[in-house]
Amino acid sequence: MSKPTNKKISESTIHRLSIYYRALVTLENEHYKTISSKELAKREKLTPAQVRKDLSFFGSFGTRGLGYPVAELRNRIAEILGLTRLWNVALIGVGNIGSALVSYKEFAKQGFNIKLIFDNDQRKIGSNHKGIKVSDFKDIAKLVASEKIDMAIIAVPAHTAQATADEVVAAGVKAILNFAPINLKLPAHVILRSQNMCIELEHLAFAMTNDVISD
Amino acid sequence: MSKPTNKKISESTIHRLSIYYRALVTLENEHYKTISSKELAKREKLTPAQVRKDLSFFGSFGTRGLGYPVAELRNRIAEILGLTRLWNVALIGVGNIGSALVSYKEFAKQGFNIKLIFDNDQRKIGSNHKGIKVSDFKDIAKLVASEKIDMAIIAVPAHTAQATADEVVAAGVKAILNFAPINLKLPAHVILRSQNMCIELEHLAFAMTNDVISD
Repeated sequence: MSKPTNKKISESTIHRLSIYYRALVTLENEHYKTISSKELAKREKLTPAQVRKDLSFFGSFGTRGLGYPVAELRNRIAEILGLTRLWNVALIGVGNIGSALVSYKEFAKQGFNIKLIFDNDQRKIGSNHKGIKVSDFKDIAKLVASEKIDMAIIAVPAHTAQATADEVVAAGVKAILNFAPINLKLPAHVILRSQNMCIELEHLAFAMTNDVISD
Repeated sequence: MSKPTNKKISESTIHRLSIYYRALVTLENEHYKTISSKELAKREKLTPAQVRKDLSFFGSFGTRGLGYPVAELRNRIAEILGLTRLWNVALIGVGNIGSALVSYKEFAKQGFNIKLIFDNDQRKIGSNHKGIKVSDFKDIAKLVASEKIDMAIIAVPAHTAQATADEVVAAGVKAILNFAPINLKLPAHVILRSQNMCIELEHLAFAMTNDVISD
């Protein structure tokens, strides 16, 4: 199995790798040893050609006629996605979305450890969310360093999100997931992803409007 | 401008159309009249070729050298995505995620009107969330019909999500957005999308592990 050439992976491929990863975990639980590109494609509503193309990225993998070895492929994808290590995450803002994220058990399962929670509301600072004490956002620079934070999730209202993100970056965080519905402007060295809850609803609206989706 | 051939749009393209749509709204607010594929690509960290390919879907559009007309392109994408009409949405489950979604102002802005909220917790039924009274989930079939619900958002715990989804489908809902971290099995006629909060974190993990993303 050759070393993957990461520079060639597109964002859409990474997204599909996350999807294959979940499918493979399910398949392992269902005691599958191997899976064909056809079967995997069918489960995830993709084409077999797309699956083969995405997985060809891992070099020659799988045996023609036998399919891909489920456990091994899962491990390889986990390595590529960086899921074989623990990531220390700081959550900024414990409103409704923030509270939901603290309770979201999938994060810890995939190695995303919410280690710090910040807010600037005096009524929230010091309170306990799932065993984590809410810290004062003023202390972010000190705590990001001492707790070795890798990523931050921003879950503050839209009108304060840019100022919040600027402080998070100044504190030394290099990867941010933004839940606020605005486009953050950040320095080029910061990795930024945004979670817009509307986009998935727009997929539904598209499908209902047009009666068909292909991929 | 020719009629788009919807059958050819892939899921990744739909996703990017949602992204272009947001970029165009921002550009309009910034008083842009036209935008080049190069500029649009740069804003969204895509390649100009990708942008041109995606937008070629709308037939010949834009004038070589002048770029795409911002307002017109925004309107065309809104039509394609089904954002020019109002969609009636039922929210199932008002735990943390459900409560966050009720407060998410972007939904209404894009035409997604949360019209009904359901729960099966007697303490929640009858309570008021942002002006909407929580209904008993037992009454879903009756209310979906009378309130002309187009889509449902499932925000219940993973272990009850499949049973909940089955009842939602039985009530006549044909499009579901699932927030529970499980793979729902639904009849083929139902349009299903899942929002997994982990996937965006995995993009960050990938980028931090591999030092580069291209698209």
